[in-house]
Amino acid sequence: MTAPAEASTAREGAQTVRVELGERSYDILVGRGLIASAGDEIARLLSGGRVAVITDDNVAKAQLPALKASLDAAGIGHVTFAVKPGEPSKRFSTFEQLCDQVLEARLERGDAIVALGGGVVGDLAGFVAASVRRGMRFIQMPTSLLAQVDSSVGGKTGINSRHGKNLIGAFYQPGLVIADTAALDTLSPREFRAGYAEVAKYGLIDDADFFAWLEANHREIFAGGAARDEAVAASCRAKARVVADDEFEAGNRALLNLGHTFGHALESAVDYDGARLVHGEGVAIGMRLAHAFSARLGLCPQEDVARVEAHLKTVGLPTHMKDIPGQLPPAATLLDIIAQDKKVTRGALTFILTRGIGRSFVEKGVDPQEVLSFLTEELVEQI
Amino acid sequence: MTAPAEASTAREGAQTVRVELGERSYDILVGRGLIASAGDEIARLLSGGRVAVITDDNVAKAQLPALKASLDAAGIGHVTFAVKPGEPSKRFSTFEQLCDQVLEARLERGDAIVALGGGVVGDLAGFVAASVRRGMRFIQMPTSLLAQVDSSVGGKTGINSRHGKNLIGAFYQPGLVIADTAALDTLSPREFRAGYAEVAKYGLIDDADFFAWLEANHREIFAGGAARDEAVAASCRAKARVVADDEFEAGNRALLNLGHTFGHALESAVDYDGARLVHGEGVAIGMRLAHAFSARLGLCPQEDVARVEAHLKTVGLPTHMKDIPGQLPPAATLLDIIAQDKKVTRGALTFILTRGIGRSFVEKGVDPQEVLSFLTEELVEQI
Ligand SMILES: NC(=O)c1ccc[n+]([C@@H]2O[C@H](COP(=O)([O-])OP(=O)(O)OC[C@H]3O[C@@H](n4cnc5c(N)ncnc54)[C@H](O)[C@@H]3O)[C@@H](O)[C@H]2O)c1
Ligand SMILES: NC(=O)c1ccc[n+]([C@@H]2O[C@H](COP(=O)([O-])OP(=O)(O)OC[C@H]3O[C@@H](n4cnc5c(N)ncnc54)[C@H](O)[C@@H]3O)[C@@H](O)[C@H]2O)c1
Ligand SMILES: [Zn+2]
Ligand SMILES: [Zn+2]
Repeated sequence: MTAPAEASTAREGAQTVRVELGERSYDILVGRGLIASAGDEIARLLSGGRVAVITDDNVAKAQLPALKASLDAAGIGHVTFAVKPGEPSKRFSTFEQLCDQVLEARLERGDAIVALGGGVVGDLAGFVAASVRRGMRFIQMPTSLLAQVDSSVGGKTGINSRHGKNLIGAFYQPGLVIADTAALDTLSPREFRAGYAEVAKYGLIDDADFFAWLEANHREIFAGGAARDEAVAASCRAKARVVADDEFEAGNRALLNLGHTFGHALESAVDYDGARLVHGEGVAIGMRLAHAFSARLGLCPQEDVARVEAHLKTVGLPTHMKDIPGQLPPAATLLDIIAQDKKVTRGALTFILTRGIGRSFVEKGVDPQEVLSFLTEELVEQI
Repeated sequence: MTAPAEASTAREGAQTVRVELGERSYDILVGRGLIASAGDEIARLLSGGRVAVITDDNVAKAQLPALKASLDAAGIGHVTFAVKPGEPSKRFSTFEQLCDQVLEARLERGDAIVALGGGVVGDLAGFVAASVRRGMRFIQMPTSLLAQVDSSVGGKTGINSRHGKNLIGAFYQPGLVIADTAALDTLSPREFRAGYAEVAKYGLIDDADFFAWLEANHREIFAGGAARDEAVAASCRAKARVVADDEFEAGNRALLNLGHTFGHALESAVDYDGARLVHGEGVAIGMRLAHAFSARLGLCPQEDVARVEAHLKTVGLPTHMKDIPGQLPPAATLLDIIAQDKKVTRGALTFILTRGIGRSFVEKGVDPQEVLSFLTEELVEQI
């Protein structure tokens, strides 16, 4: 699977990001219009096999015809299974049904599952690919910004349980990721913004230059110019670096959770009601909170908090808890959710804190009382 | 996880077989009475974690009290989930329920799933361990002979689908296997014999000396003397060698299927009715058929066929299709089952054939017509 000498036409306009995981290494292709030439790329990988495309009804409408045409042109036999859009599809019964359908279609281990969709489809289809015949080939074709810059990279697949999100699944790396940035043209503006929060996150974690570049180029990223490809590729490079370091999430991968501790607590507080808050919006608020909390602890300059807030606001993302429509629970309840989520070790909480833009770090000794006071003050603004 | 200098008392009477799989290497401990000291072994591995014991109702009655006492003595917190005995428990709904129960019990990634039981429990619990939180620690404590010499070694886990056996699962290696050969004392004689077919298989594959040793020592193996431990350990060594060579079943592991192509066809022909035929019995008949078929092709000496048959008969295993109670389908139907199972490549079938005891090999060019004539002749005996 090293890049062969005869470069395919498909790759010419595309950027390639390599995820280095030894035997499990793979390429991420990023570029406009890649779905139309995906058939050739997949053919190179499969040599004769067939594919099952797993997607959702929205993406099937917007992007599937182009993929089917491309597979047909490359002579690749295919079947398609579309699930209902949205988080509830990441459940046992859908997983079981998809496994069954893939077997029904008589696909073998050498055949491939192609995930065409957002993170929901990617996580679900990835777990199917990991499990049917104890592992089939797997190709990610992320069509949401969040999936292109985050969920399709790194091999985490899975479904939800009634005990929480993503609790059942597998670490299962794809053999190829094809991120067609033109597919994002049909994504709703709200979902695009939510994915953008994760892009900004990579700058905030450890790349101040990238964050500054985003401040200068966000318009072109939203509009779909070359900067969008660059932003997606840079994000993939950033995530690939972290994943290569810590494939099975034993340590460093934690930095990717910047903004996520507060964000998850808010998602949980609104009962994962996407009408009120989608994941990326929670992350945006969470990132401002992480910076503000770090400032309160004397770690982060106040002007960096202001810069983070200003940029997220500029692209239309929420940054304060009061931006969430409806009632929120009191600070003590939010703290409970956080403590439950993270398992308190001897009374201390683990948070991703920061010394400023691009200077985040893992802090294992956060005092829950500090968090409580901070959240109480933040919620007071609400009134 | 390399063996530390301070040998634990538990290991003293036990044999240790190392499965070499790089980072995923692990030990198999074989010996009488190991369940009673399992707590100490598990404590060494876990350093503070808890365990969920997954078992079935039969094994819970016969072997669980000793394990619980041992875990208690070692101060390891534990919960137990017992499924119904038998193959039907390897299904989606049981898998889902177990995942749920493990999460309900608030077990974390560092905690362990312990599979206490036969191959059904091991396959099911292994898939649960692989999937909950994308992978928990996993310990196999096989209590059937088949599980001790075969299913607990090699990392194949999974459940059945309505499209066939073991079609959904994961390659997931345990961190430790504890094979208490005294646990086999409570196993039914029929199940013991069935497991013995797999022991004999290792001799037939590539170790004629081991087969000769079995011919000389089978009484002691059945009776539970030192030869039983030796037979289990030797079988584990044989399987470990093949698995180390081919962890993900891309090639050589196929030799382990000696006798299994015919055997599976017969199991399928009786609709997996265990009253008529259990897996190991199918394998016993299949191994004699593989030798007889090889002899018919001029590959295997006739006296080796006779020796195989004689030994299997001596221990009470069936060797001919006519030994299966009730009607069998005609040869053409059996061939269809085989062809479906194996995917015919350009009209040829893949079989494990042999040049004699201990000299088996993979043959990809078997003519289906030859198989048909052979099965027809074999079935004629029936009348
Ligand atoms: N595996 C990981 O490492 C990882 C990381 C982060 C998030 N996730 C998971 O990702 C999921 C969220 O992903 P998401 O935000 O992509 O959600 P999603 O998959 O639900 O997609 C969001 C919405 O956009 C639609 N959509 C997607 N692409 C489209 C397109 N090109 N045109 C039109 N509509 C399109 C979808 O149908 C859906 O309605 C969550 O389940 C989360 O747990 C996983
Ligand atoms: N993972 C692998 O590599 C692999 C290899 C071979 C077989 N298998 C699987 O193994 C399964 C068959 O395993 P099995 O033959 O152990 O069947 P099993 O687990 O059903 O056990 C056979 C019977 O013996 C009982 N039993 C087990 N240990 C006992 C004990 N010590 N005392 C009393 N009763 C006991 C069980 O309750 C059951 O009724 C099949 O599902 C097969 O697919 C897996
Ligand atoms: Zn996120
Ligand atoms: Zn077998």
